[in-house]
Amino acid sequence: VLKFCLGSAGVILCIYYTCVNELYAMNEFELIKNLKSRYGLGSVGDDCAVLPNGSGVDLLMTADLLIEGIDFELSWSTAKFIGHKALAVSLSDIAAMGGSPKWAMLTLGIPEALWTGGFIDDFYEGWHALATAASVELIGGDISRSPDKLVVDSIVCGQVEHGRAVLRSGARIDDEIFVSGPLGGAAAGLAVLLKGSRQNAEISSVQQNLTLKQLKPSPQLRLANLLQTRNIATAMIDLSDGLSSDLHHLVEASQVGAEINIESVPICDRLEENFDLETVRDLVLNGGEDFELLFTCSPENGPAARELGCVKIGRITAKKGVVSANGSIEPRGFRHF
Amino acid sequence: VLKFCLGSAGVILCIYYTCVNELYAMNEFELIKNLKSRYGLGSVGDDCAVLPNGSGVDLLMTADLLIEGIDFELSWSTAKFIGHKALAVSLSDIAAMGGSPKWAMLTLGIPEALWTGGFIDDFYEGWHALATAASVELIGGDISRSPDKLVVDSIVCGQVEHGRAVLRSGARIDDEIFVSGPLGGAAAGLAVLLKGSRQNAEISSVQQNLTLKQLKPSPQLRLANLLQTRNIATAMIDLSDGLSSDLHHLVEASQVGAEINIESVPICDRLEENFDLETVRDLVLNGGEDFELLFTCSPENGPAARELGCVKIGRITAKKGVVSANGSIEPRGFRHF
Repeated sequence: VLKFCLGSAGVILCIYYTCVNELYAMNEFELIKNLKSRYGLGSVGDDCAVLPNGSGVDLLMTADLLIEGIDFELSWSTAKFIGHKALAVSLSDIAAMGGSPKWAMLTLGIPEALWTGGFIDDFYEGWHALATAASVELIGGDISRSPDKLVVDSIVCGQVEHGRAVLRSGARIDDEIFVSGPLGGAAAGLAVLLKGSRQNAEISSVQQNLTLKQLKPSPQLRLANLLQTRNIATAMIDLSDGLSSDLHHLVEASQVGAEINIESVPICDRLEENFDLETVRDLVLNGGEDFELLFTCSPENGPAARELGCVKIGRITAKKGVVSANGSIEPRGFRHF
Repeated sequence: VLKFCLGSAGVILCIYYTCVNELYAMNEFELIKNLKSRYGLGSVGDDCAVLPNGSGVDLLMTADLLIEGIDFELSWSTAKFIGHKALAVSLSDIAAMGGSPKWAMLTLGIPEALWTGGFIDDFYEGWHALATAASVELIGGDISRSPDKLVVDSIVCGQVEHGRAVLRSGARIDDEIFVSGPLGGAAAGLAVLLKGSRQNAEISSVQQNLTLKQLKPSPQLRLANLLQTRNIATAMIDLSDGLSSDLHHLVEASQVGAEINIESVPICDRLEENFDLETVRDLVLNGGEDFELLFTCSPENGPAARELGCVKIGRITAKKGVVSANGSIEPRGFRHF
């Protein structure tokens, strides 16, 4: 899910671009990137906003909007899964900063048909199970009727030691690039669901595993905490949009480039059983929503990252852009516009 | 706009109620009220969540969801007004706690048709003008595509001296009840807009004034700050749902009752020119969205409240409920369900 810390300010850039060139069609990342360069907002535009708090602790804040028909369908998800995922994606943003989640707000736009009949109950049950596991306290939100689509805005506030949030912008030349776990599963699960299969006992265990990765992602809070407290990660982002896009976000924020070894990128277990090789490669590079962590560390800390089960997939270079042995890797992950 | 600090946790009550009695149709206020009584959440369920911060300052957090077709229509509002109002309603929640706003996030679900063409630009212009006036910094948010309706979630984080937030629950028997300004204008403006008039030079100046009250409300931040720092307000709420409903919220939170003198409730200027007497009474009591403050203070502080331009409309009683000389006043303000 696209984060735009100070990104809404980015909408002001629409002005400039629509004035300068009516035909220039911006996506949401370009909008944010342009905002940052125009206004010199170097330290914003990360997975969370980092707010100094006049104490030894910085606040982290993130919001994630999930809309029925865009981010999920009621035909292939369930209330419980949607509740879980709404919180999970925000917790993943807190993880990406190396922080600890603390408070959450839930804003719900509810179509009349879902107000009664247990949907909201199930939604909250899914939300609450994850919140309890992550020690997150629900402190507020808003309820509105929605004309037709379910709308969920998940807001999470976390904490991190003052000045110690792990930003996207901290990668240095020659740093090693790691991912925290296998990729492609969530996007493959989405493909399974879109083909009409459902998360139930009627599908194979491989497909069950894939659809669960799409419907019930696990934010990497514990790992992120270790990477932060042990000073391992120099830069970090969560893999929400897809490796190709998120790595571009990271190297652009750090004003460096990356060389990756595609063969070393860990692939979700048994993905090849359900998809051809080209599709697997696409799912792994561009699929998104695995909510694993992508981070960089100095070569000296490479062994420590490996010890935590992370997998090295490349290194940071001086030359801008992202390349593999087969050439340039363009950002082809998820975008809304 | 309904606030449900810890209110989402309230959805869990749907479980109990749908189990206990399938036919029991709860509105969103009942849901929150029941949550509070069942779980003993005495200090939550206010206009903002109050979060201790380990310092001399408590954090205030609020979120307000505005959805096209429910909270506004593109046919009678404008991008600029919607941007202004999205922030204004959240600032009003901060005001209702006696706090100062500091940071904001904006979450936008944008239909494709509004992505280009300047709408987002205008929206942000309206938002930003108010943010600048209120010294609020945009720190993040999220952008998603929306299938058809514009969705705006406005999140504001403020601050108040530790332990000094003005809660809904602080009203004491014999306290005087005040409102900060004339009521009924915003709801009257909505009626004007729904009849097909638009906020432009073609309508009378009275109607222009009314529609502006609906489209561009002014949060009472400065007054709220004075009421808080001078220790005047014992309990406070903003008038978003309507005087009848919001006064019920306040007295229920304070476990007291209220006697009001309807004749003393200040009426929006020249409202009688456009509406019959019965409608005026309904707009003033139940109209909502004026975003004036409703507060209580000790009789000794009554003169100080008057000096700030506030108007006494009644007093707090031991007997639960809200009454006037003509009998009981039921909560007939806005509700989503």
